[in-house]
Amino acid sequence: MTSMPNLDILIQGGMLLPMSGERPIIEDALIGIRDGRILFVESGRNAKPNDHHAKDTIHAAGSLILPGLVNTHTHVPMVAFRGMADDLPLMDWLQHYIFPLEAKYVNRDMAYRTARLAIAEMILSGTTTFCDGYFYESGVAQAAIDCGMRAVASTGFIDLPFLESPDPTNHSRIAEKFITKWARRSPLITPALFCHSPYTCLPETIRVVKETARKAGVPFLIHLAETREEVAIMKEKYGLSPVRYLHRLGVLDEATIAVHAVWVDDEEIAVLGECGVKVSHCPESNMKLASGICPLTKLLQQGVTVGLGTDSAASNNDLDMFGEMDKAAKVDKVARLDPTVMDAETVLKMATINGARVLGLEKEIGSIEPGKRADIILLDVKKPHLTPLYHPLSHVVYCASGADVATSIIEGRVVMRDRRLTTLDIDEVMESMNELAASIRKDLHHG
Amino acid sequence: MTSMPNLDILIQGGMLLPMSGERPIIEDALIGIRDGRILFVESGRNAKPNDHHAKDTIHAAGSLILPGLVNTHTHVPMVAFRGMADDLPLMDWLQHYIFPLEAKYVNRDMAYRTARLAIAEMILSGTTTFCDGYFYESGVAQAAIDCGMRAVASTGFIDLPFLESPDPTNHSRIAEKFITKWARRSPLITPALFCHSPYTCLPETIRVVKETARKAGVPFLIHLAETREEVAIMKEKYGLSPVRYLHRLGVLDEATIAVHAVWVDDEEIAVLGECGVKVSHCPESNMKLASGICPLTKLLQQGVTVGLGTDSAASNNDLDMFGEMDKAAKVDKVARLDPTVMDAETVLKMATINGARVLGLEKEIGSIEPGKRADIILLDVKKPHLTPLYHPLSHVVYCASGADVATSIIEGRVVMRDRRLTTLDIDEVMESMNELAASIRKDLHHG
Repeated sequence: MTSMPNLDILIQGGMLLPMSGERPIIEDALIGIRDGRILFVESGRNAKPNDHHAKDTIHAAGSLILPGLVNTHTHVPMVAFRGMADDLPLMDWLQHYIFPLEAKYVNRDMAYRTARLAIAEMILSGTTTFCDGYFYESGVAQAAIDCGMRAVASTGFIDLPFLESPDPTNHSRIAEKFITKWARRSPLITPALFCHSPYTCLPETIRVVKETARKAGVPFLIHLAETREEVAIMKEKYGLSPVRYLHRLGVLDEATIAVHAVWVDDEEIAVLGECGVKVSHCPESNMKLASGICPLTKLLQQGVTVGLGTDSAASNNDLDMFGEMDKAAKVDKVARLDPTVMDAETVLKMATINGARVLGLEKEIGSIEPGKRADIILLDVKKPHLTPLYHPLSHVVYCASGADVATSIIEGRVVMRDRRLTTLDIDEVMESMNELAASIRKDLHHG
Repeated sequence: MTSMPNLDILIQGGMLLPMSGERPIIEDALIGIRDGRILFVESGRNAKPNDHHAKDTIHAAGSLILPGLVNTHTHVPMVAFRGMADDLPLMDWLQHYIFPLEAKYVNRDMAYRTARLAIAEMILSGTTTFCDGYFYESGVAQAAIDCGMRAVASTGFIDLPFLESPDPTNHSRIAEKFITKWARRSPLITPALFCHSPYTCLPETIRVVKETARKAGVPFLIHLAETREEVAIMKEKYGLSPVRYLHRLGVLDEATIAVHAVWVDDEEIAVLGECGVKVSHCPESNMKLASGICPLTKLLQQGVTVGLGTDSAASNNDLDMFGEMDKAAKVDKVARLDPTVMDAETVLKMATINGARVLGLEKEIGSIEPGKRADIILLDVKKPHLTPLYHPLSHVVYCASGADVATSIIEGRVVMRDRRLTTLDIDEVMESMNELAASIRKDLHHG
C-alpha cells in the first residue's frame, strides 16, 4: 500500500446520471479520473476509506453528475452580434446586418477573441464540447485549446465574394490544409468541414469539400432545409428539394451532419435515415427566426441520430444547452399535441451521448463510463427551483438552467469550480468583446 | 439643509427600463423610494452630490433596472408536485397523480409551507407579484405577507367531492368570508376568486362566484379553453364552446381573467376583446402539457390585454418568468412563421405593465414611475451570456434568466440583495419541502 496519489481527480458523492445505455443511475457515486480519462465509476456505498488517493477530491453531495453537454451546432464568433438586430425578417437580418458586419469585422483575431467569450458562456452553462462552423476557424480552434474546451472546429465554405475563399477551385487545398493543421494538434480538437448551405454553395464546392472530408475521415456539415424559402430557391434553381439535391450530389452519408432539417417530408426523412445522415436540431434558432418546427419525432422514428445545437447567439440569443433541451421537448409536444412524445430521457440523450454520435465522438465522450474522456459536469440541485427532486432527468430538462452548473471538467481538467472559470480571465474577455462591440455600435448608428 | 435621510432607498446608476408608455430608457438612473413608493425617477447625470440622503443606497452600475415581473397565473402549492409525473397524457396525470395527491396532502399548513418555497423561487427569478389560484389560499396569502411578496390570492372553487367546499350553496358565503378576511389585511395582498374551469364547476357556481367578485370589486379567474378536450366536453354537455358558454352565463367582463385561451376562434377572440376580458397566457404549460398554441398575436390585434403566467411548477416545471417571456416570443414567431411578430418590447410589457393591467393593479405596479409602489428588480448584465449589450429589451427577453436577477425590492423593501433572500430562511424552507416530498415519494412507490 502506498500513499502516492493514483488519481488526478476523485469525485465523491452526488447522484450520477451516466447516460450510457446499460448503466443505471448511481445515488452515491465515486468516479476516478486519471490522465484525462475516466478510470472507474462505482457506488460510493461500497467504498472503503483510503481506497483511493487523488490529487484533487471533489465533494459532490447534493449534486447531479452528468456527462458534459454536447452542442452540435454553433457559430461562436457571432456572439459579437448577439441581440444586435432581433425580430426582423430573415433576409433583412442577413443582408442588412449579418453579412455586411461579417465582411467588415470577421478575421482571425476577431474569431479568437469572440470564441473565448462564447467558450466562457458555454462552460458556465454546462457545455464541454461544441461543434463550430465559421470562417477563420483556426482562431476558434486555438481559443478552444487555450481555454481547455473540446471542439469540433469546422472551417466554412461559401461562394460569396467577400469572405475568406472566394474561388471555389481553392476549396480542396484550403480544406486539406486546415485538416492537416488541426488533426493531431490536441486531443481537444477535431477538425471538420462546413459548407454553408445548398443555396449559397455551388454544387462543385459541396462535392469537393465533402470528398476532401471523406478522404480525411472528418465530419462534413451543412445547413439543410432550414426555411421554406430555401426549399423554394432550390426547386427553382435545381428542380429538387434540398435533401434530394444533396442526395443526388452523393454527399449524404454517416459522416454528414445536416443542420436544422426543418422542411423535410416523410420520403426525405427516410432517405436521411437510410444514408445514416446525422441531424443537428436547433429548436431555439428555428423558433426565433420563425424557420419552422423540425419533425423531430419522425426523424427519431426513422432511426436518425439527432443531437441538439444552439446555433449562434445572433439567433437564439444565448448558448445555453439547457434552454435547448427544454424547448426541444416542449415544442415537439405542442406541435404534435401529445405530451408523451419527446420525454426527458430522450432529450437528455440528444444533448449528451447522441450529440457525441452526431459528431462521431461517441467512443470518446457523451457518457460517463470507464475509458471515456473525463468530460463531466456537476449541477447544484440544492436550490428552490430544483426542490423537491423526484426524477433527476426531468429536473435537468424542465427545471435546470445553465446557471445551476457549478463545476465542469474537460479532458480531466477542472475548467470551472463553484462557478469560477479556471482557464480564462473573464473580465478581460468581456472587456475585449465590449471594445469590439463599441466599433460595431458606431457602424450601426451611422450605417 | 439637513443631513436627515429623506429616502428609504436610493438606487444609483444602472440602465432603467421604466416600461411606462411615454418614459424613455434612462442610461444612468437615480430612483428615490420612500414609504413603499417611488418618489422620483431621474437621470443621475444631472444629480449633484448630496442631493439625497437615503438610509440605504443601492449602487446599480452595470445593472438593468426593471419593474418587478408580474406572474398572472400560478398554483404555488403545486411546487410539491414539481417533476413528479412528466411526459404523461393530461387525464392520466390529473386523475392518477395530481387529484389523489391533492386530496391527501393539500391543507392550510401545506399551502403555507409550499408557498414559501415557491415565493423564494419567484423572488430569486425576478417576480415581485404573483396571482395564485388554489385551495386553502389563506395559507398562500399569509406566506406572501410573511415573505414580503405581493400576491393576488384567489380562493378556488371546484365542484368535486374531495376538496375544501363540496357544496355549491356554500360558495358565496366562503367567497365573501375570504374577501373580507384579506381585503384590508396588507397592501401586499389583493383577494380574488377563482373558478377552476367551465367543465369542473357547475353553471350556478360560476354565476354565484362571479357575482360575489363583482359586488366586492375583486378579480374573477377561470381556466378557459385550455384543451381541445375541454371544448369537446363543453359542446357535448352544454352545446356551446367554453367562451360562448361563459358569455351566455354573463360572467365575461373587464374583471374576468381567462387563463390560457388556447382554443378560441376569431369570433370568440372578438367577444373577449369587446367584453374587456383579460387573458393570462401560459406558454410553457401549454407546450409541456401539449394543450396547444394560444393565438397571441390575434388576441393583441383585437385589443385584448394579455399578461404572462407560469402556471404551476407541476406543468412547467419552474416559476421563472424569464423562460415564459422567451417562449411567448419564440412560440408565436414559429407558429406564425413570422420572426417580426411578438417582438421583445411587446413581450416584456406582457410580463410587467400589462400583467399589472390583467390583475387590475396597473395604477399601483408594473412600471417604474413616481407614485407607484416600489417593486423593482436589478439584473446583473456583466456576464458572458449578456455580453455585448446592444439592446437591453432584447437581452431581457432572449438572453437573461431568473438567475441574473441580483436584487429585488417589493413595496420599498429589499427582499433579495446580491442573490441573498432577506425575508426567509431558504435552507429551512427547502428542508420543510423535502420532508413533505419524502411522504409523497412513499405514496408514489406504494400507490
